[in-house]
Amino acid sequence: MTAAASPVSPGASPSALALRAGKSAVLGAERRLRLDCGVELGPFTLAYQTYGTLNADKSNAVLICHALTLDQFVAETHPVTGKPGWWTTLVAPGKPLDPANYFIICVNVVGGCMGSVGPEAVDPATGRPFGIGFPVVTIADMVRAQAMLLDHLGIETLFCVLGGSMGGMQVLQWASAYPDRVFSAIPIATAARHSAQNIAFHEVGRQAIMADPDWRGGDYHSHGTRPQRGLAVARMAAHITYLSETALHRKFGRNLQDRDNVGFGFDADFQVESYLRHQGSSFVERFDANSYLYITRAMDYFDLAREHGGVLANAFRNTRSRFCLVSFTSDWLFPTRESREVVHALNAVAANVAARAQEGAMSVETLATRRNAIRIDLQLIADMIASKARVLDIGCGDGALLDYLVNFKQVDGRGIELSQEGVNACVGNGLSVIQGDADTDLKAYPADAFDYVILSQTLQATRDPREVLRQMLRVGRHAVVSFPNFGYWRVRLSLLLRGRMPTTQTLPYSWHDTPNIHLCTIRDFLDLCASLGVEIERMIALGPDGRRVGNGGDLPALINLRAEQAVFLLRNKA
Amino acid sequence: MTAAASPVSPGASPSALALRAGKSAVLGAERRLRLDCGVELGPFTLAYQTYGTLNADKSNAVLICHALTLDQFVAETHPVTGKPGWWTTLVAPGKPLDPANYFIICVNVVGGCMGSVGPEAVDPATGRPFGIGFPVVTIADMVRAQAMLLDHLGIETLFCVLGGSMGGMQVLQWASAYPDRVFSAIPIATAARHSAQNIAFHEVGRQAIMADPDWRGGDYHSHGTRPQRGLAVARMAAHITYLSETALHRKFGRNLQDRDNVGFGFDADFQVESYLRHQGSSFVERFDANSYLYITRAMDYFDLAREHGGVLANAFRNTRSRFCLVSFTSDWLFPTRESREVVHALNAVAANVAARAQEGAMSVETLATRRNAIRIDLQLIADMIASKARVLDIGCGDGALLDYLVNFKQVDGRGIELSQEGVNACVGNGLSVIQGDADTDLKAYPADAFDYVILSQTLQATRDPREVLRQMLRVGRHAVVSFPNFGYWRVRLSLLLRGRMPTTQTLPYSWHDTPNIHLCTIRDFLDLCASLGVEIERMIALGPDGRRVGNGGDLPALINLRAEQAVFLLRNKA
Repeated sequence: MTAAASPVSPGASPSALALRAGKSAVLGAERRLRLDCGVELGPFTLAYQTYGTLNADKSNAVLICHALTLDQFVAETHPVTGKPGWWTTLVAPGKPLDPANYFIICVNVVGGCMGSVGPEAVDPATGRPFGIGFPVVTIADMVRAQAMLLDHLGIETLFCVLGGSMGGMQVLQWASAYPDRVFSAIPIATAARHSAQNIAFHEVGRQAIMADPDWRGGDYHSHGTRPQRGLAVARMAAHITYLSETALHRKFGRNLQDRDNVGFGFDADFQVESYLRHQGSSFVERFDANSYLYITRAMDYFDLAREHGGVLANAFRNTRSRFCLVSFTSDWLFPTRESREVVHALNAVAANVAARAQEGAMSVETLATRRNAIRIDLQLIADMIASKARVLDIGCGDGALLDYLVNFKQVDGRGIELSQEGVNACVGNGLSVIQGDADTDLKAYPADAFDYVILSQTLQATRDPREVLRQMLRVGRHAVVSFPNFGYWRVRLSLLLRGRMPTTQTLPYSWHDTPNIHLCTIRDFLDLCASLGVEIERMIALGPDGRRVGNGGDLPALINLRAEQAVFLLRNKA
Repeated sequence: MTAAASPVSPGASPSALALRAGKSAVLGAERRLRLDCGVELGPFTLAYQTYGTLNADKSNAVLICHALTLDQFVAETHPVTGKPGWWTTLVAPGKPLDPANYFIICVNVVGGCMGSVGPEAVDPATGRPFGIGFPVVTIADMVRAQAMLLDHLGIETLFCVLGGSMGGMQVLQWASAYPDRVFSAIPIATAARHSAQNIAFHEVGRQAIMADPDWRGGDYHSHGTRPQRGLAVARMAAHITYLSETALHRKFGRNLQDRDNVGFGFDADFQVESYLRHQGSSFVERFDANSYLYITRAMDYFDLAREHGGVLANAFRNTRSRFCLVSFTSDWLFPTRESREVVHALNAVAANVAARAQEGAMSVETLATRRNAIRIDLQLIADMIASKARVLDIGCGDGALLDYLVNFKQVDGRGIELSQEGVNACVGNGLSVIQGDADTDLKAYPADAFDYVILSQTLQATRDPREVLRQMLRVGRHAVVSFPNFGYWRVRLSLLLRGRMPTTQTLPYSWHDTPNIHLCTIRDFLDLCASLGVEIERMIALGPDGRRVGNGGDLPALINLRAEQAVFLLRNKA
């Protein structure tokens, strides 16, 4: 009889089934696991699964960290439910994490119920299951135990550690606690701390379990009961939070379940009710109620900033890992805003980070760096930047300028780009670019975080050019700004003679669909700089075809007439 | 002993206490209440409270409809909790609903547990409490019963019916089912149908109650038990939904409760946990678990559109009531979007409606209509509008034009305005104006809903002027558009000679803070109309000081030079 095919016998422990079905290691016999609560644990069992083969120099190990109610059965039939592995979209031959290339490890977390030590495990001191005598564990404890398993397997460095939700919390903890052991990190749909709302939902789940008389003060194993009704209610409440309001509406709306009219009763009239009931009842077959208490508590306690003097950036001070953060715009448990906070913290310590917020399913693209030739007009900007400087390129588009600066001037460069296509192109080229908006996101950056902040052909498309310029010179020691000149003689003459909004080579849009909502002339821009107390270190004006104008000391009025566009190097007056 | 001071004795029914403490009427002895489920009810008791005195012509009656867990004790000490009435901010001397002026009624809903007939009431057929033998009731049933009480009190017409959440559903049902009996209606933070997410949360609460062994299949009264743990969990889950994520963060964040560090246990470490537990435990003292099942079910079943052929507007076809909808931008149970749907439905049947979405507490302002003089430039637009036409004014500002059109041309006028200050001013003047955005909201309106759609001095501030114009001529048979002319000779000359973005009397902003993000000339606009197949029925060009130019058959190019602004009357080419 295979474990996968075996039905769950009443009172049978998923934990025991998992141990029969998978790998496990006994750790902590010599050096015990010291938990955050002060208790020491050992010897203890960790259950895990692996896929693929560790290569000779042990450089291809990938650690997948699982979420609250998942487990180590990533890419194979689950021994309790008989269902396929939970991440076969990612871990499978031909998929991004192909076992032919990587040695993939997933560990059932400490506190879990699929074979690792947790409330279901037998307490050596009493010979009976720990129950709620098991010490309360944290995300850091889970990660510490995983590190002990890696030691046991002889793996020093992880090529990648990745995971979503609580798995993402573990990824952040890994990068913070073991910076030398993490080459790259992919935290997905997660946060550096659990929000009040998330704690609230967890608390409702715990109260539902503890309100079930079958919970027996946590000692249900001794009484031969299981608090299945309470656990099902907890699962139902949590499951609502796994789908956005939009997704619930799209998936179920007010559709009725197998009936034409409401039943005037308390059966599941609506599809969404039937769905939730199924989620609740199927969950209790595979999950231990006490584990649910412990694991939700670990998530509630997670707060990386608090453990680093209240400054999240300090948690990553020593990191050299490459980061790729993924979030989902429809996620309300871990909104994109929370991933952004992590990205800003990483940017503040000059970590190598990319982030993407997306609506559909996740995909991890191969990172590859290209060497592009640079357009002639961007060359001028590049010439203004000192080598090895710290550079932020706002509205970096497909990253052509940033790529050039990184590769030919060895700058520590990162970018912000509004369009997701642009961000994808940049990240695909190995650039540290995040999706963001010049008008809103600059204020999240600390002062003097960069040597240069660049805004190329974007000022006129911002909602508040004055504030953007002010923020640029707060965040950076220098600002580089280029824009099309509405004072160019062809523009003026076109309006004068044609009586229509001008369109030129640098202003190709028609009046009603142009993104250029705050056009200005060179003189307008000079006035703005003067009003902001900004010193103009350098100005290059370009005529048609990129020829420089105004080098011979022309009057500003003449430059304003002759220049089709201009590039400025600015700094705050001392 | 007053009821208010009496503690709840074990097993004591809140219902009985309420009956001792308040008013009640026995109804349905002759004409029984026919419920939506088909069952007939009668005689039955309705418990209610009143404040103030009914005037001689019975024209000052105000009905307040209560939400899920509230009751009839609006403005006095609660007989069970001893707490003040739940809406004394509104109902009190000197407040908007002053008992000196109004006769205010609030009825405990059918299915409730504060004295009205419900699952706690004694079934005459058995002599024992109905329990879940009570028929499932709907919002319509609740309203039908309230109408019977009004008959009993001799009140034909309500001056106002108002309420929030489930109370708002009752208000919508009142306006739909009894259009002749409702002079004005104020549905607050509500929706015309319950969303999938809301049904899901209710279902979790019901499952929590029914999972409690003390529920006893609904017959707990016979067993002398009460499913308090289940009801407390239901309340906790629901309570999370009553606060936005932002509010929870602001109110509690991750603050700890009376401790400096987490306790590594399952006590309420966090303030938000302590708060939820208190909400749960205090609720069970005053509420009946079966009532919670019935009332949540009534909300789930509410779907006004479905009962009117799937078209919400049909629900209000016969209404002559004045509506004021209020929603809260932070509300995620009843988001502003759902109130907007009701507003659009009311607009579609030409109901008299105003709406406001706001962040703070609610206030109801006195409606008063002023007669304003109109600015001379708006007079031109007014002259283009036929008397008694249906008019939509987009970007109506403080409503000066709309007020003029309503009062002097008897139009059926409504407005959309972006700024909340503008909306407040309009609503304060008795105008039907809702908060909205020309760029996004026009597509929600049906085709040909209006005779004229006006866009005065706003086209150049829209993000997509072409699409706005297209939508205007879909929604209205005619469009009236006015805008500042960027082809005016002073503008052209200013740019030509000064080399700066022009500022004039009609274009007073500086380039970087102007809301005019898509400026155009008269010729640009003529080109756009031609490309959209729009016929120009009339054009008035204005020079400085509002003098007309181009009446003598000037060439378009000359008008474009001489006009500082222009007004167009447009329609689609046949």
